[in-house]
Amino acid sequence: MVKLVAVYRKPEDPKAFDEHYFKAHLPLTKKMPGLVRWEIERGSGSPMPNAEIPYLTAHLYFDSMDALNASMKSDQGKAAAKDLMEFAGQYVKLYFAEIVEGEEVI
Amino acid sequence: MVKLVAVYRKPEDPKAFDEHYFKAHLPLTKKMPGLVRWEIERGSGSPMPNAEIPYLTAHLYFDSMDALNASMKSDQGKAAAKDLMEFAGQYVKLYFAEIVEGEEVI
Repeated sequence: MVKLVAVYRKPEDPKAFDEHYFKAHLPLTKKMPGLVRWEIERGSGSPMPNAEIPYLTAHLYFDSMDALNASMKSDQGKAAAKDLMEFAGQYVKLYFAEIVEGEEVI
Repeated sequence: MVKLVAVYRKPEDPKAFDEHYFKAHLPLTKKMPGLVRWEIERGSGSPMPNAEIPYLTAHLYFDSMDALNASMKSDQGKAAAKDLMEFAGQYVKLYFAEIVEGEEVI
């Protein structure tokens, strides 16, 4: 399993950002082919002084890097990327990651 | 659901770091009371130039901030934190996050 991770720093207008993110951008993201799971988290603090706390982080899961690359090249992926750059290009950093270990504790 | 997220930048000796992380530190982390799920990811690239790609990121899930705070104050939490600062204090940033939306796509 791999992820596309989008880390957003705090925007100048958080209310307008959230409005666009949840009502327009996230629905576009969810149309990306091959998406198998997503998780949106809101940074809420840190036990360390001076830590950078992301405002919002989106984790988009795909079965493989091939599936993720194909999704980013699809019409739906291009539409999501275009919207991202227009509304949050100055706030977002993207990276890819592989899940190396994960488990639910029963 | 909330998370404690540990973001590690690339260490000077990745082989020694991985050896300690997976054989010593992660087992200590898994003993923390109230841990309900974990996910370890390895940064693998970025579609953006000059993006900071985390070397390793650990997501530790708890039912609530109360449960997470209690876990960090427990003997097991203190043992994991002590080990963390000793082997990776110069590489790690910690933050808390709340899961605001997440779903499996069936």
